[in-house]
Amino acid sequence: MTLHKHQGQFTWDQVNILKYKEEGTHFKDITRQILFAGQPDLPCQWRYFEIAPGGHSTLERHHHLHVVMPIRGAGQALVGTEILALTLFDVVHIPSLAWHQFRATGSEPFGFLCLVPAERDRPERPNAGQLEDLKREPNIARFIRV
Amino acid sequence: MTLHKHQGQFTWDQVNILKYKEEGTHFKDITRQILFAGQPDLPCQWRYFEIAPGGHSTLERHHHLHVVMPIRGAGQALVGTEILALTLFDVVHIPSLAWHQFRATGSEPFGFLCLVPAERDRPERPNAGQLEDLKREPNIARFIRV
Repeated sequence: MTLHKHQGQFTWDQVNILKYKEEGTHFKDITRQILFAGQPDLPCQWRYFEIAPGGHSTLERHHHLHVVMPIRGAGQALVGTEILALTLFDVVHIPSLAWHQFRATGSEPFGFLCLVPAERDRPERPNAGQLEDLKREPNIARFIRV
Repeated sequence: MTLHKHQGQFTWDQVNILKYKEEGTHFKDITRQILFAGQPDLPCQWRYFEIAPGGHSTLERHHHLHVVMPIRGAGQALVGTEILALTLFDVVHIPSLAWHQFRATGSEPFGFLCLVPAERDRPERPNAGQLEDLKREPNIARFIRV
């Protein structure tokens, strides 16, 4: 039995606060914690991401789908061609190959659970032409950060 | 893209409130909601269970492991031979074949997220001998409901 006791402020006993990604300038003020790393019998990972006010995740897509649930604060997400306002306990299924990006809105950190397959493809960022296509929609052009 | 907007009170848009199990007297006042049903690429289910004050889940075990996180109220769980006090956002990994049972404590419903493999074995309830073994520990004898 493993118990990761919540220590308050969305940190957990024996769970490290990790960099979101090793390097890059395509994200801002975001951390990652692995709550369940996956096992052969349950081949998925359950993570907690937290974006500080003003921060954002990478604009990216990948073949694997994932499922997200905010548990702290509020934010917005681009998913495909839609911009969603996300509040506590909403559940979003992000389909394969949908472009997506998360942003914190408001003055509180935006934290969300994220479920992914334990084995998954690496995210892809938009090339110049894909970015141009995305930006044809003015709302998306205003939303995204690259 | 699927968005199950949280409607307050731990119900979600287009998510049905289901019976915990089809039949039985070995559980009390508990409901089930499926937030993500699983897909070949992400072969796990993400559920929300809610136990009303005074209620409990079935005392059971199974080969598949699962991961649990309370998001409403507080409760207690037997996991193996330990009785845990569970509060908001704790994370518990329940190993294969560990006997387990959840109970709501306090006057508020106890709601928790539960992650399981999409394909999994059916739970097993203790037989008379196993129950006798469990009850050798006075704390466990007092805790369990069958």
